[in-house]
Amino acid sequence: FQVMEKQTIAPLFPARAFNSHKGSFGHLLVLAGSPGKTGAAALCANAAKRIGTGLVTAGVPEGINAVMETLVVEPMTVPLPETASGTLSPNGLDRILSLAENRQALALGPGLGTDPDTRKLVTALVETCSLPLIMDADAVNCLAENPTVLKSRTSPAVLTPHPGEMARLAGIYTSEVQADRPGTARTFAQDFNVILVLKGAQTLIALPDGRLFLCPAGNPGMATGGMGDVLTGMIAGLAAQGFSLENAALAGVFIHGLCGDLLADIFGGFGFLAGDMIRNIPETIHRHLT
Amino acid sequence: FQVMEKQTIAPLFPARAFNSHKGSFGHLLVLAGSPGKTGAAALCANAAKRIGTGLVTAGVPEGINAVMETLVVEPMTVPLPETASGTLSPNGLDRILSLAENRQALALGPGLGTDPDTRKLVTALVETCSLPLIMDADAVNCLAENPTVLKSRTSPAVLTPHPGEMARLAGIYTSEVQADRPGTARTFAQDFNVILVLKGAQTLIALPDGRLFLCPAGNPGMATGGMGDVLTGMIAGLAAQGFSLENAALAGVFIHGLCGDLLADIFGGFGFLAGDMIRNIPETIHRHLT
Amino acid sequence: FQVMEKQTIAPLFPARAFNSHKGSFGHLLVLAGSPGKTGAAALCANAAKRIGTGLVTAGVPEGINAVMETLVVEPMTVPLPETASGTLSPNGLDRILSLAENRQALALGPGLGTDPDTRKLVTALVETCSLPLIMDADAVNCLAENPTVLKSRTSPAVLTPHPGEMARLAGIYTSEVQADRPGTARTFAQDFNVILVLKGAQTLIALPDGRLFLCPAGNPGMATGGMGDVLTGMIAGLAAQGFSLENAALAGVFIHGLCGDLLADIFGGFGFLAGDMIRNIPETIHRHLT
Amino acid sequence: FQVMEKQTIAPLFPARAFNSHKGSFGHLLVLAGSPGKTGAAALCANAAKRIGTGLVTAGVPEGINAVMETLVVEPMTVPLPETASGTLSPNGLDRILSLAENRQALALGPGLGTDPDTRKLVTALVETCSLPLIMDADAVNCLAENPTVLKSRTSPAVLTPHPGEMARLAGIYTSEVQADRPGTARTFAQDFNVILVLKGAQTLIALPDGRLFLCPAGNPGMATGGMGDVLTGMIAGLAAQGFSLENAALAGVFIHGLCGDLLADIFGGFGFLAGDMIRNIPETIHRHLT
Repeated sequence: FQVMEKQTIAPLFPARAFNSHKGSFGHLLVLAGSPGKTGAAALCANAAKRIGTGLVTAGVPEGINAVMETLVVEPMTVPLPETASGTLSPNGLDRILSLAENRQALALGPGLGTDPDTRKLVTALVETCSLPLIMDADAVNCLAENPTVLKSRTSPAVLTPHPGEMARLAGIYTSEVQADRPGTARTFAQDFNVILVLKGAQTLIALPDGRLFLCPAGNPGMATGGMGDVLTGMIAGLAAQGFSLENAALAGVFIHGLCGDLLADIFGGFGFLAGDMIRNIPETIHRHLT
Repeated sequence: FQVMEKQTIAPLFPARAFNSHKGSFGHLLVLAGSPGKTGAAALCANAAKRIGTGLVTAGVPEGINAVMETLVVEPMTVPLPETASGTLSPNGLDRILSLAENRQALALGPGLGTDPDTRKLVTALVETCSLPLIMDADAVNCLAENPTVLKSRTSPAVLTPHPGEMARLAGIYTSEVQADRPGTARTFAQDFNVILVLKGAQTLIALPDGRLFLCPAGNPGMATGGMGDVLTGMIAGLAAQGFSLENAALAGVFIHGLCGDLLADIFGGFGFLAGDMIRNIPETIHRHLT
Repeated sequence: FQVMEKQTIAPLFPARAFNSHKGSFGHLLVLAGSPGKTGAAALCANAAKRIGTGLVTAGVPEGINAVMETLVVEPMTVPLPETASGTLSPNGLDRILSLAENRQALALGPGLGTDPDTRKLVTALVETCSLPLIMDADAVNCLAENPTVLKSRTSPAVLTPHPGEMARLAGIYTSEVQADRPGTARTFAQDFNVILVLKGAQTLIALPDGRLFLCPAGNPGMATGGMGDVLTGMIAGLAAQGFSLENAALAGVFIHGLCGDLLADIFGGFGFLAGDMIRNIPETIHRHLT
Repeated sequence: FQVMEKQTIAPLFPARAFNSHKGSFGHLLVLAGSPGKTGAAALCANAAKRIGTGLVTAGVPEGINAVMETLVVEPMTVPLPETASGTLSPNGLDRILSLAENRQALALGPGLGTDPDTRKLVTALVETCSLPLIMDADAVNCLAENPTVLKSRTSPAVLTPHPGEMARLAGIYTSEVQADRPGTARTFAQDFNVILVLKGAQTLIALPDGRLFLCPAGNPGMATGGMGDVLTGMIAGLAAQGFSLENAALAGVFIHGLCGDLLADIFGGFGFLAGDMIRNIPETIHRHLT
C-alpha cells in the first residue's frame, strides 16, 4: 500500500475561483437519523457544510425533523415518511429520488437504525440512485445481509466500515479483519466494486482496482462516538463539490486524521468530541493543505 | 458604476447618542421560515440583532415556532397561520399588517418556500404594506410571476436576488444576467422602481434613479448557503434603525463583504458559515467603519 | 442623588466561605415567558445562575416548557397552567405559592405577556407572595392599571420600568418621566413603597425612604432587547443569595452597567446582545468588584 | 483519612494504546431526567463523553426525549416508558436490563425525580442490574426509604450524596452528618457495602473496607446546581472505560475538584456553571494528570 502524503492531497484544494457562487460547490443530500440518533445526522450534515459544500439538505424521519432543525442552522432539512419505529421508510423512496435529481452526492447512514423496512430502503437506494454514494454505519449494517447489490452500481459507492462492520459485511470475524486489514479491504473493494474505507488506527482506503492507501494521520483520542458521522459528512461534502469519489475518500480520511491531531494538540490525548472536530475542519485544511 | 468605499459608508455609523434606548434603534419585523428552513429565518433575525437593531420580531408559520424559539434568544417570535404545506398563509395577512403598525421595516423571504398561497401573501404584502421592505430568496421567487406589483409601491423595495433569481425576475436566462450584470440590474431597478442588489462576486446595487454601485469586498468562501439570509437581516436591520433603504442596502452589502473577508482571515479560504458571520458583524463595523 | 461607586458595591461581595454549598446561595423562582417570548425567560434564568445563585427554577406556561428546557441547562423548569393565549394562568397560583415556600426570591415578568388573566395572577402574587419580589417588563405593565396593590406589601418590591413603563405606572406621559427622572422615580418609590429602578441612560434607583442613586456605568450599546431581562435575573439572583432588596437592586444595576461597558470594549459601540452579557457577568464582578 | 494526591491519580491515566477504537473506551448507560430536569441528564451524559467514554446512551422518559436530543449531540438517547408524572416508569425495567447487557456501567439519578413508581424502578435496578452502578441525587433520595437493598449487591455501588441526602440515607440530621463527616461516611460505606462520596467542601470518599480519602481540590464557586450531575457523569464515564469503581470514584472526585479550581482561575470566585466544567475536563486532565 501507499502511505498518504500532504503533497498528494493538497493539490486537490486549489484556491476557489473568484467568480464562484454557492451552486459552484454542490448540493449534498444526507439521509440519516432516527429517534435517539438525531445527533449523528446533525454531525454529518454540519461536517459537510464545514468542508465547503455549497448547500446541504438532510432528509430525516418526520418525527425527528424538529429536533434536527434545532441542531443544524445552515443545512436545510426535509421530513420524510417513517416506519413504525420512527426510522426512514421505503415509502419515501420516490420522494428521495426526486430530491436526488438536483443533488450532486448522497450520504447515507449516520443514525439510520436497522429496521427491516429501512434496510429495504437502503438496498433500493443502492440499486436505483445514481448519485455518488457514501455509506456509513447503519447503512453498512443494513447492507450486510446482501452486499452483492453493490456490484450492480455503475459508479462504485464509498463504504466506511469500522472493523466490526467490515466483519459483518465480509461475513467473517472481527479478529480476522484485524489480522489482515489490507487483504480484507482490498479483496472486498475488488469483489464488490466499492471504495472501501476501513476505519481504525491507520485507516485504509482500498479502491476497486486494487490500489490501497494508508492514512498516517490520526490518534486514539478520536476513538469516540460520532467521529465516523463527521467523516461521512466530509467525504460526501467533497464529492458534492465535484471531487471524484476516490479523491473525496482519500482527502476526507486524511483531513479527518489531521483534524484529530489538531484536536489532540488543543485538548490533550482524549476528551475532544466529534462536534469539536467540525469547527476545526477549515483551519486544518488551511494550515496543512493550502 | 461607482465602487463603494469605506469613506462613504463609515459616516452612516455615527456614535450612538448617549441618551438613546432600545426604541431608538427600531423594531424590525421578519417574515420567514417554513418546515426544514427554520434556520434561514433564524439567521436573518439574529443578523438583524447583531447589526444593532433595537428589537426584532420574527413571524413564522405556527408549526415551526417552537424550533424557531430555540434558535433565536433575543429576537421575539409570533406564530402565524400556515398553509397545508406549513408555509405562511394569506390568512395571516391582517395579523401581519397589524403587527407591522409599530415596526420600522419588514424583511420578507428567507426560507419562506414558494407555496402558491404563500405567493399570494407575498404579493399582497408588496401591495399593502407601506413599511420599508427588503425581499430575498423565496420572496423574490414568489414575485417572479408578477413583478409589476413592485411598481405600485410608493417607496421602492429592496430586492436581493442572486443571478438565478434575477433571471427568473427578469424573464431571461442566467447566462444573460451574468453577461451584463450592470445593465440587467440597472434596467430592472429603473423599470420596476426597486433597489436591486444583484448578488455574486462583486455584488451590484442598482438604484431606481439609474445609479449603480459595486461592492469591492467579499470572497468566494462566502459562496455557502445561508449567507444571503444574513445579508437580508443586515439590510433590514439597518432600515429599521432609520437608514434610508438606499443607505441600508449600500451599507449592508459592504459590511457583509467585509465580514466575509474577516472570516477568510480567520478560517482560510472556505469553511466558514453564515452563523459565523453573524457573530463577527459588530467587530467588522468597529474595526473598519468607526 | 448619590452617584454609585465601586467602593460601596464591592464590599457586598465578600469571598465565599470555604464551607459553603449550593443551598448557601439561595434558590430563585422565576415566573416568565409566553409563546414567542421564551427567550426573555431564558435570559433571566441564565443571568441569575451566572451571578452566583445556587439554584434557579423557572416556572413557565406548560406549552413552552420544552422550548425553555432547550435554552436553559443548569436552571430547572416547572410547567405551569396556561391561559388560552398560552400565558401563565391564575389557575397556577396555588402551585406557585407552594413552589415559593422553599425559595428565597421571586423574579416576575420577562416575556409574561399582558393577557387579562395573567394580570390577575400578577396582582394576586403581589398581594400574597411574601418572597422578596422583583418585577419587570410585562409584570410592570400588568400592574399599571392598579399599582396601589404594591402598597399592601410588607416588604417593598423592586420594579424595573423603562421610561415608557414608568409612564404607564405613574399615569403620565413618557416625556414627563424624562423631563424629571429623579422626581418621578423618587415620588413613585415613596408613594407606592417600592424600590424603583428607572432604566435608561444613567439608570436611577429610588428607595421608599426617599434616597436616590444614579448609576454612572453603562452605554448606549446596551439599548437592545433582552438587556432588561438580564438585569431582572441579576437583581433577583442577588436577592436569592441573601442580599437585601436594596443592595440587590444597587449591585445588580451597577454590575449590569459595568458588564455593558466590558462588552463595548470587546464588540465596539453596539451589536453585543443580552446573551453576551450573561457570559461576562462573572469576569466583570471579578475584575471590578473583588 | 488519606489526602488524595496527583501522584496517585495520574497513573490511572496512561496514554491511550495506539490501536484502540471507540469500543475500547466503553459504553455507558445513563438513566436520568424528568420534565423540567432534562438539563441534569444532559450534563451527566455530556460529562461522561468529555472524560473519554467511547459511547454514551441516555435513557430518558419518552416525553423529554426530543428536548434531550437537542442538548446532547454525541451521546445517543433512548426514549423509555414514563409514569403519569413523566418520570421513568418501572414498566421500562425489562427494556433497561436489555439495554444494560452491552454496557459497561450505569449512571442512575440526575433529574430522575422521586415519583413513587420511579422509586420502585430505582430499587429494582439496584437489586437486579449487575453493572458497575453510580447513583446520585434523586436516585439516592429514591433509595432513602430502604437503603438495605444496597447490601444485596455483589459489587458495591457508588453513591454521591450531599450532606442533606446523606442525612436522609442515614436517617439522621444534616447537622449530625456535618458534625462528623468522616465517621458518617465510613460507617455508612461499611454498613451498606457502598463506595460513598460525601460531597461538600473537602469531599470524602469512603470505601467498604473502611478506608477513607479526602479531596483537597475544589472551591466554593462550585456550589451551584448541576455540578453534582457532572460529577456523576465523570465517575460513571471512568467506570465504563474500565476503571474499578474505587478508582473511578477517586479520580472522578479529584478531577472534578481540579476542574473547579481551573474555572475559578478563569471566571473568578463564582459564576461559572456546570456546563463550563464539562468543556474543561480534558484540559484539566491533560494539564494536571498526564
